[in-house]
Amino acid sequence: MESIDKIHGTFEKRIAETKANVPTAVIKRLPRYHRYLGELIREGRMRISSAELSELLGVTASQIRQDLNCFGGFGQQGYGYNVKYLHGKIGELLGVTEGFRTVIVGAGNLGRALAATHMFERRGVERLALFDVNPDIIGTKIYGIPVYSTDELGEFCRRERVDIGVLTVPKEAAFSVADVMARAGVRGIWNFANMELSLPYPEVEVENIHLGDSLMTLCYRLKSAGGAEED
Amino acid sequence: MESIDKIHGTFEKRIAETKANVPTAVIKRLPRYHRYLGELIREGRMRISSAELSELLGVTASQIRQDLNCFGGFGQQGYGYNVKYLHGKIGELLGVTEGFRTVIVGAGNLGRALAATHMFERRGVERLALFDVNPDIIGTKIYGIPVYSTDELGEFCRRERVDIGVLTVPKEAAFSVADVMARAGVRGIWNFANMELSLPYPEVEVENIHLGDSLMTLCYRLKSAGGAEED
Repeated sequence: MESIDKIHGTFEKRIAETKANVPTAVIKRLPRYHRYLGELIREGRMRISSAELSELLGVTASQIRQDLNCFGGFGQQGYGYNVKYLHGKIGELLGVTEGFRTVIVGAGNLGRALAATHMFERRGVERLALFDVNPDIIGTKIYGIPVYSTDELGEFCRRERVDIGVLTVPKEAAFSVADVMARAGVRGIWNFANMELSLPYPEVEVENIHLGDSLMTLCYRLKSAGGAEED
Repeated sequence: MESIDKIHGTFEKRIAETKANVPTAVIKRLPRYHRYLGELIREGRMRISSAELSELLGVTASQIRQDLNCFGGFGQQGYGYNVKYLHGKIGELLGVTEGFRTVIVGAGNLGRALAATHMFERRGVERLALFDVNPDIIGTKIYGIPVYSTDELGEFCRRERVDIGVLTVPKEAAFSVADVMARAGVRGIWNFANMELSLPYPEVEVENIHLGDSLMTLCYRLKSAGGAEED
C-alpha cells in the first residue's frame, strides 16, 4: 500500500480541501460505486479501467472520471484504478470508517430481516441491539443480536452512544420512538415506518425509505413498455 | 366528479398527447406526489394550493406547477388542485389502475414483511401468492397469502398471467428464479436480492432495491454534519 499511497501523493490533503465541494449528485452515485468495487474485491480483482467500470455501472467513462476527479482522482492513464484503494477511499468519504453504532427498533418481519443481513457490518456500522414491545422476545437474541424492551431505548442510546436508529415500528409509533432516540443523542434515523418523518431537531438527519415509490416506478416502466410509445 | 371532469376538459386527450414526452425526472417525482396526495385524502382534504403542496413536499411551487403542467396541468388559478382528482390522474399515469398482478418469491423475513404491508393493494397491485422452498410452510398461508413450492413458480406465472415478480431469495438463487419468471411471461422484476440483476431479456424491466446505498447516504450525512465543514 505504501507505493500506492506515494502514487496518489497528496490525496489526503486534496480530500480535505475538496470534500465540502463534492456536488450532491456525485455523493449520491458514490454508494453505488462503493458497492460495485466491493463486489470486484470479493471476486479478487485488483485493477479496473474506467472503460470497464463504465460498462459495469452503465455510466459513461467520462462521467466516472469526472465523478472521481471531484475528490482528487485516483486513476492513472493506461493503468486504471486500484480497486481496493478506490473502494477504501470512497468508503472513507462516505463515513464507512467512522464506526457508527446502531440499534433497530421493532423486531417484526422487517426488523428481523435487517437483523439477518450483512449490510451493516459490511459498511462499518455496528448493530448493538434490537428493541421491541413484545414480552415474548424481550431478553432473547435474534440472529445473535440481543432484544431489549422499548422502555429502555432512551437510556440505552445515551449510555451506548448510539449514532443511528433504525425505525421499523408501525407508523403510529414512529414519531414518539424517533423523539426518544433524538433526545438520547441519536443523530441519524433510518426510517422504514412508511411515513414521512419530520422531527423538530434540525441536527438529526432522517433518511426515509419509501419502497412504495420504487414499486410505482416499476409499474410505470411496465405500463410504458407495454404501450405503443417508447422513449 | 362530472363537473370536475368538465373543468379539466381535454385532459384525457392531453395525457395521450404528452405522455411520451414527460421527462424522466418528472416521472421520478410523481410517486412522491402520489403518496402525499394519498395521505391528504386519508386526512379528508379536498383541495390544496400549489403553495401548500410546495411546503408539504419541500419543492418550490413553481417546480410543482411545472411538473404537473408536463401532462396537462390540473390546477386552477386561485382555486388550487382537486386532491382526489390529481391523485387519481397521477396514479393512472403511473400505472396504478392497470391491475398488475404479482407474486413474492422467498417467504423469509423480508418476504413476510412484504406480505404484511398494504403497500401493494394501495397502489393497485394484487399479490397472488408467495413461493418458497421450505416444505414446512408450503401449503400454508402467510397474512392470507397462499404459499406454494418454488417448483411451481413458472407454471403458476404462466397460468395466472403474473406481471411482476418480487425477488426476496438469497443472492445465489436470484438469477435462476428471475429467469424462470421471465420465461413464464413476467415483465417486471422487483429485486431485493441485494445484487445487481441483469437479465438477457430486454423486454423485462428490473427495479433493483439497494438498501445499503441508502444506509451509506445516511452515514455520509452524519459524517458531514459531525465535521467542521457544512454545506
